[in-house]
Amino acid sequence: MIENRQDLEALDSADELREFRAQFELPPDVIYLDGNSLGALPRRARERIAGVVEREWGRDLIKSWNAADWISMPQRTGDKIAALIGAAKGEVVAADSTSVNLFKALSVALRVNPARRLIVSEKTNFPTDLYVMQGVIEQLGGDLELLLVDGTEEALEAALATRGAEVGVLLLTHIHYTTSRMYDMRRVTAAAHKAGAIIVWDLSHSAGIVPITLNACDADFAVGCGYKHLNGGPGAPAFIYVARRLHERFTQPISGWMGDARPFEFLPGYEPAAGISRYLSGTPPVIAMAALEASVELILEAPMEAIRRKSIALCDVFIELMDRHCAGFGLELVSSREGAWRGSHLSYRHEASYPVMQALIRSGVVGDCRPPDLMRFGFAPLYLRYVDLWDAAARIAEVLRTREWDRAEFRSRQSVT
Amino acid sequence: MIENRQDLEALDSADELREFRAQFELPPDVIYLDGNSLGALPRRARERIAGVVEREWGRDLIKSWNAADWISMPQRTGDKIAALIGAAKGEVVAADSTSVNLFKALSVALRVNPARRLIVSEKTNFPTDLYVMQGVIEQLGGDLELLLVDGTEEALEAALATRGAEVGVLLLTHIHYTTSRMYDMRRVTAAAHKAGAIIVWDLSHSAGIVPITLNACDADFAVGCGYKHLNGGPGAPAFIYVARRLHERFTQPISGWMGDARPFEFLPGYEPAAGISRYLSGTPPVIAMAALEASVELILEAPMEAIRRKSIALCDVFIELMDRHCAGFGLELVSSREGAWRGSHLSYRHEASYPVMQALIRSGVVGDCRPPDLMRFGFAPLYLRYVDLWDAAARIAEVLRTREWDRAEFRSRQSVT
Repeated sequence: MIENRQDLEALDSADELREFRAQFELPPDVIYLDGNSLGALPRRARERIAGVVEREWGRDLIKSWNAADWISMPQRTGDKIAALIGAAKGEVVAADSTSVNLFKALSVALRVNPARRLIVSEKTNFPTDLYVMQGVIEQLGGDLELLLVDGTEEALEAALATRGAEVGVLLLTHIHYTTSRMYDMRRVTAAAHKAGAIIVWDLSHSAGIVPITLNACDADFAVGCGYKHLNGGPGAPAFIYVARRLHERFTQPISGWMGDARPFEFLPGYEPAAGISRYLSGTPPVIAMAALEASVELILEAPMEAIRRKSIALCDVFIELMDRHCAGFGLELVSSREGAWRGSHLSYRHEASYPVMQALIRSGVVGDCRPPDLMRFGFAPLYLRYVDLWDAAARIAEVLRTREWDRAEFRSRQSVT
Repeated sequence: MIENRQDLEALDSADELREFRAQFELPPDVIYLDGNSLGALPRRARERIAGVVEREWGRDLIKSWNAADWISMPQRTGDKIAALIGAAKGEVVAADSTSVNLFKALSVALRVNPARRLIVSEKTNFPTDLYVMQGVIEQLGGDLELLLVDGTEEALEAALATRGAEVGVLLLTHIHYTTSRMYDMRRVTAAAHKAGAIIVWDLSHSAGIVPITLNACDADFAVGCGYKHLNGGPGAPAFIYVARRLHERFTQPISGWMGDARPFEFLPGYEPAAGISRYLSGTPPVIAMAALEASVELILEAPMEAIRRKSIALCDVFIELMDRHCAGFGLELVSSREGAWRGSHLSYRHEASYPVMQALIRSGVVGDCRPPDLMRFGFAPLYLRYVDLWDAAARIAEVLRTREWDRAEFRSRQSVT
């Protein structure tokens, strides 16, 4: 039970992750509650970028492919991400965007049991997941079919029980981008496998913020985003995981030269590289990947259990403060009050979500909106303090109490994110 | 006829592009003849990156999608590239890698005339072009077939004459990565169209260095690389061009959210964006694209005719100096002596190409090797001086004359590029 701001200062003093905040560049006078959409800038990412640009590109030029080992960046960064998601070394590469990696993962997943023509997902999955499934079906044609069901474990298991023999692939986002609901990865993966289906997990809202045990759950494929909780910078490279047991059995369709076994021998016939490297396509985005690698290294210095513990605590405290200070202003918590199956962001419904959020941003509390009527707040344990939540809740209450948001300037829709 | 180094100093003094060299960061004591593989660092690219990282990411965070217009970067950068390749505004986007864009272009090109099941290319095309064709054929399956012919215009026209009715797509690289041979884009495009085929041009070694007239040639699709003559940095985003007349007729298979008409409405069904934007897939790589955009802006300040004129002159001068200083050392020019159908790099055959190049790099002349026995030298008109060629030829002659390269340290193969 929080009585006052001093209680939160006490939590900050006792915070085992408190030293990490100094590792980030944070804007003054802003409480940034949107690290689930774009993570803040780690100082070492800024320094790493400057080094890559000035020394490795500017001075050493082409030699840096060897001298700075640019050529191994996708695998090296992938191995570091692997340690965050319960995968082994050699099972993850950093590459391309989440969308492109979804295309690769889904294309290959459909080759595992080619007679099964049904892809199952959930109705409110993130759009790019839905769109890539639609694009793969259009590309491959034939009798492929997409079945979208309700997002509960029960609904998924019921669909697998009814039509399991047809299901080739189950593609799900581990933590939902609005509700923050987290699937039981072990249970759902086991259900997919029991039906004979392959599972593809989208970890975009999970990687770097919750413990993930891909290998222990026997997961088949996973993809995820580099610019949210991994703090890799705007449009950072994404990643793809493929269980080792599937590596040598299949090739992915975007067979560019970096996925070839001997790219610098310039041979006419594609021969997929051994292992996860065959999931690479084009030349790696060196500068962007340097930022991601540096940022992931920082996250690896924090125990994941501590990140998760603080993430749940931050959400719990925020809910408590919002209950106290913002009751009666038309806010409804959409996310669960229970931390166990919740990610590190919370969504609140408000009939004027868009203008309210614009007014909040003006007041220095940065979250975002998701249609039709949701406000999202994300909680980054490495750089958020408990007192930030006190101050944020106070400002939110003030904006709602005064109806400061109810002005034309906040109602006009200009924001795209 | 060049008599001495002063003749080259005179050429530099008269060089209409001489002011551009100061716009680049260049390493001291190095003559960099590999801008065709990785372009040098433009100062404004370094500054733009620093600004994006420190201000836009570090300080303004998520707001920069709107405030810094990150969201329009792919189209904005694409429009700038369009001006270099003879395309109209709205026909090019910067995105993904060349390999991924080849996959998109080829996939769509095959949908134009679905009854035609033959893809034609040339035997020595760049590997990623060959590999992506193989990957698309494997992905789409059925009776698709790849026909690789000799690279001459005559051989291509003969293939089109014989099997033209079957040819769905002709995919060619405009300037060859080793020989530097440049296709007559107008003639080959016309021959493809006469046969009823769609053409896909890979402009990786052409964009930013030779005049290209995609629209005037009535080309259908093109892709290209951002890190060679466009100087966009290691692993820079690539680009894709689609003729406007084809925009609304097809969608590309990697249908991620950024190619959707209303990505921030989070709707369940993919609706391709109007125009070239539908060729986007995932979130744009903001930091890397900022470097590319800044670099392309710099190139646009130089008249393309001046770039081309100096590019040909640099190659001609280098050939003359090499003829004079390196005769009798076992070098054979593989590229044409005629500038008209040649790009901005030259390949020389030498039986010890790899150790010779390693010794050259040690001596401060940076080129690269291509198997089995080629040395490549590239010529960047915006930052190379004519005197650099004199000095390079002198060092090359010295390395060859003294057989300095014939040492174990240069023979051990460590370099990947």
